[in-house]
Amino acid sequence: MKILIVNDDGIHSRGIAALAKALREIGEVFVVAPLTEQSAVGHSITMKIPLRVHRYFKGDEFFGYAVEGTPADCVKMGIRNILKETPDIVISGINNGSNAAINVIYSGTVSAAREAAIMNIPSFAISVDSHNVDDFSYAAEIAKKFARIVTEEGLPSGTLLNINVPNLPKEQIKGIKVTRQSMTRWDDHYEERIDPYGKKYYWLTGDMDEKNDETEEYDHYALKAGYVSVTPIHFDLTDYSAYEKYKDWQF
Amino acid sequence: MKILIVNDDGIHSRGIAALAKALREIGEVFVVAPLTEQSAVGHSITMKIPLRVHRYFKGDEFFGYAVEGTPADCVKMGIRNILKETPDIVISGINNGSNAAINVIYSGTVSAAREAAIMNIPSFAISVDSHNVDDFSYAAEIAKKFARIVTEEGLPSGTLLNINVPNLPKEQIKGIKVTRQSMTRWDDHYEERIDPYGKKYYWLTGDMDEKNDETEEYDHYALKAGYVSVTPIHFDLTDYSAYEKYKDWQF
Repeated sequence: MKILIVNDDGIHSRGIAALAKALREIGEVFVVAPLTEQSAVGHSITMKIPLRVHRYFKGDEFFGYAVEGTPADCVKMGIRNILKETPDIVISGINNGSNAAINVIYSGTVSAAREAAIMNIPSFAISVDSHNVDDFSYAAEIAKKFARIVTEEGLPSGTLLNINVPNLPKEQIKGIKVTRQSMTRWDDHYEERIDPYGKKYYWLTGDMDEKNDETEEYDHYALKAGYVSVTPIHFDLTDYSAYEKYKDWQF
Repeated sequence: MKILIVNDDGIHSRGIAALAKALREIGEVFVVAPLTEQSAVGHSITMKIPLRVHRYFKGDEFFGYAVEGTPADCVKMGIRNILKETPDIVISGINNGSNAAINVIYSGTVSAAREAAIMNIPSFAISVDSHNVDDFSYAAEIAKKFARIVTEEGLPSGTLLNINVPNLPKEQIKGIKVTRQSMTRWDDHYEERIDPYGKKYYWLTGDMDEKNDETEEYDHYALKAGYVSVTPIHFDLTDYSAYEKYKDWQF
């Protein structure tokens, strides 16, 4: 099994090292990841400047290819110019921080897996619900499990999985739940500061505006309740109920 | 009517000037746009560096606010820190180049309108199918028409419109069609070059891999056939058919 591994935290991150290590037990692993952290870049691709690619070593050992670009760039570059063949699966992560609810929209991790789905390759994104993960081993085990399931069972064309793992010891995990995307969003605000030269600048910050009427059927809530959340997502953004409503309108 | 206008081509672009001019005939227009071109940034937001905002003048005349950030940043910043109230509508464009089929995924223009939808504000994106648009006046007229329709009729919560206009004289336009997103994708490749210092670099390029079984029901094909294409889209990425299939699986 040929496995392409990408992320958005950067090739130096601990999450991608844990993922590569676990997946090497079941297949041939190729790592192609951003040289620098690319969180919240969404489905950005690099077109105005050319890409550069570097061989990346850990000590004397070759680990993978570092791309001066985004997670989606890494998938395109990895498949078109590095592997030069189609891998059996693309796995993105393991991300520091959950990618549930509205965070899916901004996520570089999920966008990398989505880029693979656009290229018609089975894929999933995997994230742990903490920005300070101590131990990636349970999430790595889940990644290995789903790499097997996805390559054996396949996925519908255009579908990818968005997997989120609670930051809990394995024995406290309640199970695995297939979920839908929560509509919980950020209530954003900007913190204004003054730089040493007297100029204003702004940091984006905010709180999650939780939906009270949602249950563990939704990714965000399943995760908070201690379940591994697995959400099938796709890249057809058409709003079909609105399409049906409007399609015969005369403008 | 308070109208927030954004884009991804940058505040200096001709498309946003044409849009602002047309919309000023029917409402109070606020322009908040990226200082520099932000094409293909997708739904990227700026979190690792702070944002800066500048007042932007055309000659002696104040035109709007230029943000050192992405299209989605402009919407958040425009609403939270500049208008400090909710506009009646957010309009993103007029973009140079279509945002139909798979381009929707990479589009900064569409992502800005989607950010507004996430904030529960009616919105649409508008693009012209050419990278060298001579005359934005017909697209500006369409923008004005849909600004009226959307503010009068409303849109379902979470739905935004993705409007694409052929680059044709008005009399050659066949009509307005409500469409769904085409699954036409890019067949990417990288062009390898050598810089003056002997190092390799890569440009992303490719061709559209047209779907032969799609008709004018789809955005890309309606546009090519001479129709203004209006696609309702949303930000719930859940693949409901896969969700129904998998939700009772035991893992």
